[in-house]
Amino acid sequence: MKKPFEELFSNTATKLQASIIRELLKLTQKPEVISFAGGLPNPDAFPVQQIHEICPDIINNSNALQYGTTEGVVELREALKKRMAEKNVKCELENIQISSGSQQALDILGRILLNPDDIVLTTCPTYLGAIQAFGFQEPRYEVVEMDEHSVIVEDLEARLEEIHKRGDGERLKFFYVTPTFHNPAGVTIPEKRRKEIIELCNTYDVLIIEDDPYSELRYRGKDEPLLKSLDTEDRVVYISTFSKILVPGFRIAWMVGPTELVKKFVIAKQAVDLCTTPFTQYVAAEYLSRGYVNQHIKKIKEVYGRKMRIMLKSMEEYFPDGAQYAEPDGGMFVWVRLPENINTIDLFPKAIEQNVAYVVGTAFYPNGGGLNTMRLNFTHPSDEKVEEGIKRLGNVLHQELSE
Amino acid sequence: MKKPFEELFSNTATKLQASIIRELLKLTQKPEVISFAGGLPNPDAFPVQQIHEICPDIINNSNALQYGTTEGVVELREALKKRMAEKNVKCELENIQISSGSQQALDILGRILLNPDDIVLTTCPTYLGAIQAFGFQEPRYEVVEMDEHSVIVEDLEARLEEIHKRGDGERLKFFYVTPTFHNPAGVTIPEKRRKEIIELCNTYDVLIIEDDPYSELRYRGKDEPLLKSLDTEDRVVYISTFSKILVPGFRIAWMVGPTELVKKFVIAKQAVDLCTTPFTQYVAAEYLSRGYVNQHIKKIKEVYGRKMRIMLKSMEEYFPDGAQYAEPDGGMFVWVRLPENINTIDLFPKAIEQNVAYVVGTAFYPNGGGLNTMRLNFTHPSDEKVEEGIKRLGNVLHQELSE
Repeated sequence: MKKPFEELFSNTATKLQASIIRELLKLTQKPEVISFAGGLPNPDAFPVQQIHEICPDIINNSNALQYGTTEGVVELREALKKRMAEKNVKCELENIQISSGSQQALDILGRILLNPDDIVLTTCPTYLGAIQAFGFQEPRYEVVEMDEHSVIVEDLEARLEEIHKRGDGERLKFFYVTPTFHNPAGVTIPEKRRKEIIELCNTYDVLIIEDDPYSELRYRGKDEPLLKSLDTEDRVVYISTFSKILVPGFRIAWMVGPTELVKKFVIAKQAVDLCTTPFTQYVAAEYLSRGYVNQHIKKIKEVYGRKMRIMLKSMEEYFPDGAQYAEPDGGMFVWVRLPENINTIDLFPKAIEQNVAYVVGTAFYPNGGGLNTMRLNFTHPSDEKVEEGIKRLGNVLHQELSE
Repeated sequence: MKKPFEELFSNTATKLQASIIRELLKLTQKPEVISFAGGLPNPDAFPVQQIHEICPDIINNSNALQYGTTEGVVELREALKKRMAEKNVKCELENIQISSGSQQALDILGRILLNPDDIVLTTCPTYLGAIQAFGFQEPRYEVVEMDEHSVIVEDLEARLEEIHKRGDGERLKFFYVTPTFHNPAGVTIPEKRRKEIIELCNTYDVLIIEDDPYSELRYRGKDEPLLKSLDTEDRVVYISTFSKILVPGFRIAWMVGPTELVKKFVIAKQAVDLCTTPFTQYVAAEYLSRGYVNQHIKKIKEVYGRKMRIMLKSMEEYFPDGAQYAEPDGGMFVWVRLPENINTIDLFPKAIEQNVAYVVGTAFYPNGGGLNTMRLNFTHPSDEKVEEGIKRLGNVLHQELSE
């Protein structure tokens, strides 16, 4: 080409820039670095034997090798309907949509719901992948504060009231939230608050996107009800994934939502990728219908629960008092808040020098801020590395806080 | 929800409507209907045994079960680099991008290249999936006429000149074309025209998207060079897929393009679905590197070549003179043009009554028209059904043309 690509790119593409996170993550790829930066499951928690047992049957099923329907494989949606019923979510097949990972569900929901300058209400911090997916549509973000029990309901109410008072009610398209083992904050909304959130959203007639990749990964305490199970007015769009309870390498997630929304989603998805990988959808369907999933979740919880306890114990031992964090009951992350004068972007090269890495917290702030925060993943490194890495990071923090 | 979903949907979503094709296709699902409407490969042409041989090794590779990079699995891109070199396309790994089917490549290219009202130059008719993918961005289409040797170069030149003369040169973002065994038209651009097209696009500095799902499926005649292999100015973005040479159910395609374009594609794709299914990418990589692919393409060509000959012979026998078609040398489709007064949408229920189905041709016209055309797929039905279906359709056409 003679003309520069800048002249060819769309306005959207021009605004898409490689994120600082991506650049920082490149530094973590040296083998000597212990990385708490990823969000990866541990290969020790992959049900390899079960996949070996299932695959030959799937290869013999020509439907698994052919194009599939955009809605998703019926056998998988049937199995998910059963599973959702066990979690007190009643739905029909027409409400269940398969997507190529949760990320695709977020992307397509953004495309079918958001115009530029529409409002997305979410927590602060919130999931980075959602900010990236919704970002294509250039929405405005309004944020709700959290405490150690996640969403502060009074703040949610204040935001909703404010948005409606200033006449922006129609531009508010949804409230996006990860109620259980929040990414990145690690916190979980208790039942009482969940009910209050549903009530508030009923009052203000707000759609809720409940992103739930982690609720099966509870290592202590009792399960909280899904927001979707408390939904009385068909306003919750529920998203979950096989990435954490089977393997991420299959790229299978599912969404449960209002019929009309799912119909529109299907039309959009057809133009986006025709269908999600039928082969791995069939494997996931068998994984559910053969009952492997619950056995295997037990194993995952053992492995990850142990790692979480090692991380929390190590943090208690090695972290300075100035580093604050809420102890999660499950999921994959611990969220750390440092004194306001510490900037975790500036701190990053010093951590890498000590061969330890984290994700800078500001990436999770849709309107900027959070420069004194970081996210630590405990599921991917080995047990020994979790302890050793926290020790190294503790040293870095001690030094920084004493300066 | 209390408010209707129409108030929540984005402008883009509001314009997305279930297509007439989708509605018509529902009628073809009765088992007694012989359908030439799909675009499906035949399960007899799936390399089931080879997949059985490969899969156990892939399951034992934890990278295949983990999240993958957005660019795609390195082993697959290495194997594709070799394969492209055999087709006289020299490229580096950084030029090769994996996507979740060709459809995703088209969608993301549309997103990163097109603003509303930008111009897409393409053939008339053109691939329906491309119209759907680019449609999100609401471009204008300018169309180039085709004859039995595909793109009429003089018409391409006239269009380019006209666009530039009226000052729309900057809004013209690319020329989208399927040079070999065109979908739906079945025709192929000969080498001389290919060189002229490249020259013209060099002169007018136009990006070319070469969609090439079918060139491996040649049943007679000699191979034509890929446009990408004739590209001297890095202006061809090449797209191909494993859907026709392995299986569609793996959802693996690849793109070879200019470094800068691929970089932007990666940033967009990360927000769209993080990565394409690593598991099936690894299977595809082994399928190439074990050398299964060329053996298997021979088998596919036998099966499909036979079906094409049966269809063409049956058309000769059973179709009325008023039905015109160019005989393809490969691919999956025969394109039929009826007298101007015949409307294939109106004809459709009559065909269904005779238990035979096709795709109405107007779906492939980005600016409307083509009401007297239809597309016939010969790869999916059994040999017997190809003949029987053409006989039935011949009856329908004879009756219609005699009225």
